[in-house]
Amino acid sequence: MTVITLLTDFGIRDGYSGVIKGVIWGIAPDVQIADISHSINPQDIIEGALTLARTAFFFPSGTIHVAVVDPGVGTARRPIGLKLGGQNFIGPDNGIFTLVLERAEANNENVQIIHLDKRNYWLPEISNVFHGRDIFAPCAAHLAMGVAMHDLGTLITDPLRLPIPKPQPTESGGWYGQIIHIDHFGNLSTNLTVRQLKNIQDVRLSIKSEQIIGLVSTYGERPPGTLVTLLDSTGSLSISVVNGSAADLLNAHIGDQVEVNPKN
Amino acid sequence: MTVITLLTDFGIRDGYSGVIKGVIWGIAPDVQIADISHSINPQDIIEGALTLARTAFFFPSGTIHVAVVDPGVGTARRPIGLKLGGQNFIGPDNGIFTLVLERAEANNENVQIIHLDKRNYWLPEISNVFHGRDIFAPCAAHLAMGVAMHDLGTLITDPLRLPIPKPQPTESGGWYGQIIHIDHFGNLSTNLTVRQLKNIQDVRLSIKSEQIIGLVSTYGERPPGTLVTLLDSTGSLSISVVNGSAADLLNAHIGDQVEVNPKN
Amino acid sequence: MTVITLLTDFGIRDGYSGVIKGVIWGIAPDVQIADISHSINPQDIIEGALTLARTAFFFPSGTIHVAVVDPGVGTARRPIGLKLGGQNFIGPDNGIFTLVLERAEANNENVQIIHLDKRNYWLPEISNVFHGRDIFAPCAAHLAMGVAMHDLGTLITDPLRLPIPKPQPTESGGWYGQIIHIDHFGNLSTNLTVRQLKNIQDVRLSIKSEQIIGLVSTYGERPPGTLVTLLDSTGSLSISVVNGSAADLLNAHIGDQVEVNPKN
Repeated sequence: MTVITLLTDFGIRDGYSGVIKGVIWGIAPDVQIADISHSINPQDIIEGALTLARTAFFFPSGTIHVAVVDPGVGTARRPIGLKLGGQNFIGPDNGIFTLVLERAEANNENVQIIHLDKRNYWLPEISNVFHGRDIFAPCAAHLAMGVAMHDLGTLITDPLRLPIPKPQPTESGGWYGQIIHIDHFGNLSTNLTVRQLKNIQDVRLSIKSEQIIGLVSTYGERPPGTLVTLLDSTGSLSISVVNGSAADLLNAHIGDQVEVNPKN
Repeated sequence: MTVITLLTDFGIRDGYSGVIKGVIWGIAPDVQIADISHSINPQDIIEGALTLARTAFFFPSGTIHVAVVDPGVGTARRPIGLKLGGQNFIGPDNGIFTLVLERAEANNENVQIIHLDKRNYWLPEISNVFHGRDIFAPCAAHLAMGVAMHDLGTLITDPLRLPIPKPQPTESGGWYGQIIHIDHFGNLSTNLTVRQLKNIQDVRLSIKSEQIIGLVSTYGERPPGTLVTLLDSTGSLSISVVNGSAADLLNAHIGDQVEVNPKN
Repeated sequence: MTVITLLTDFGIRDGYSGVIKGVIWGIAPDVQIADISHSINPQDIIEGALTLARTAFFFPSGTIHVAVVDPGVGTARRPIGLKLGGQNFIGPDNGIFTLVLERAEANNENVQIIHLDKRNYWLPEISNVFHGRDIFAPCAAHLAMGVAMHDLGTLITDPLRLPIPKPQPTESGGWYGQIIHIDHFGNLSTNLTVRQLKNIQDVRLSIKSEQIIGLVSTYGERPPGTLVTLLDSTGSLSISVVNGSAADLLNAHIGDQVEVNPKN
């Protein structure tokens, strides 16, 4: 049974994601549907791109990921579909697929990108403000029913990409990174990974006026309230407070700078 | 595979909607279940009625919509079921079905309304404060398993209806409306539709001290931060801020008055 | 079709619960998955235990409940599985199963507890901070596919239990209890039940400076705004405000003391 996932900034109050499920099940009655998140910050395409890249590849091969953070809905921005890494993606061509594209390219995987311009796979009436319901949901459902991705539209090769911040070397042989995600627990995830750590035993991380020496491998190694650095479940270097919120303790925000260096 | 939807004011923290799914799957193991919303304002039957009317008809024919905003739970108010427009509805007789009933009547559709008084389709033990679990969920599940709606109870013709505000003509040939819904993005939806606009090119909308001239067809036609009027995905005339919140900008609330007139 | 439920403190924003569904459906494509809650207070194992005990037994026999409130993730605390009362439970051995265990013991039911130490049923790579994804989800999915609980690990008999507060008798023949849960509506649920009420007609409940005489059987018996005591849908003696929030009115918190006595 095919899985369709939903990742949006629609919120959970107004029934928008429910309507999308109705449209999908009207076309593909047996698919499983999983909500990834409907609480991406409104219009925050980069948060959507990041959450998509961190979740999509845990789904079974053939899953269809519908990602709709879409401030340009109804304008000339294209609806697109992508096949890569065994997964399918459907959404607006506004950069939300930047990170899954970069991952596929880094892995030398085949990538197929389709401009979803075959109107016979859309709902008959199209609102200018809700393509999630009227274009993306029915395209995903037809894909689940066995329509090939390339039959939903026209092959393209120029998807829009957003500049996602990359780590930068410091003069002293360390790395500058930045906070790219703050989760529900207040954990601060950075764009630094094990690749920026010469020696995982020998790390000094600086954030604001704090210095954290060494990495822990799990929260329970330190007492509650301690500020720690660790590699999180996505492989990112992250800053946490044991049983607490690093975001609150440090008054940290997306984009704040961090620096890693050998510890002496 | 039949779909059952859930629309409640139960919130998402306490497991109330989870329990309802458990009861449904105990009786009808193969149904698909979609959450429409569990974040209707507590006891706000009109918000429930509106969200139900805006979402239900996007589901496949035969879907069963369980709608439980139910401040009178355990009192003499009746549990009811409705068949109309190819859809089924289950919930309290407190006005939550007013708008789907009005829609069916406007379309001259058949409407069947049943007082769900056959206790053999309820759970064996009935709490006075959780009919969602004990009456509505099992009735919906039995319906999904093929029991006819009219076998769940007794035919009635007098469902309770709530007064839903209607647009009123102004002396100068325009219309007064009001804000009936504010969504997650801060978009202000009104009870005005294209029927109150003589000429869609020629509209002046007044809300509080603001005047908005003309309609846009999508957000991207104006720069971020601009206050715009458009027909939203439900067909309502609505007020939005491009990439922002009209609710915040205007400090707007449900019930606030708006006025539309030809623009000069 | 087997049901798997999810109860966590992961929040709904970051896609953590979505990833768990991806892992489950990768192993067991046909299972139904129900979210019980992802909004347990971070690290609040007792709230998790309570919500689990109040919801699990409404699911069909054979359901698998994955409960992950897990501040000790990655430490020596064991991953465990339990069979009791016709239901299966998977999660950390940190006390989250205390109440379902106590219930089974009170009912003289068989209880089987397994240390989930067979790594061939885990994901190949294990993060130290997300056992929900890497251990609990795959174990639950293998269980759903027909692997026996005892094949997932080693029988144990010493699960960790948390002290859950019990009612205490007063000197004058009444009972002290405390608030153990505050729900979305602001209803205050206590650890008192019908067992502490000698005569259900004859109850005086004291909380803070308020006294409530008698029980109602449902909210609608009193006008909006009235403070009432009733037996809630879980059988707990609880304090509510009709169409309002008792938590707000009384500024009440988990752990606040209540006292019940015959009314004169």
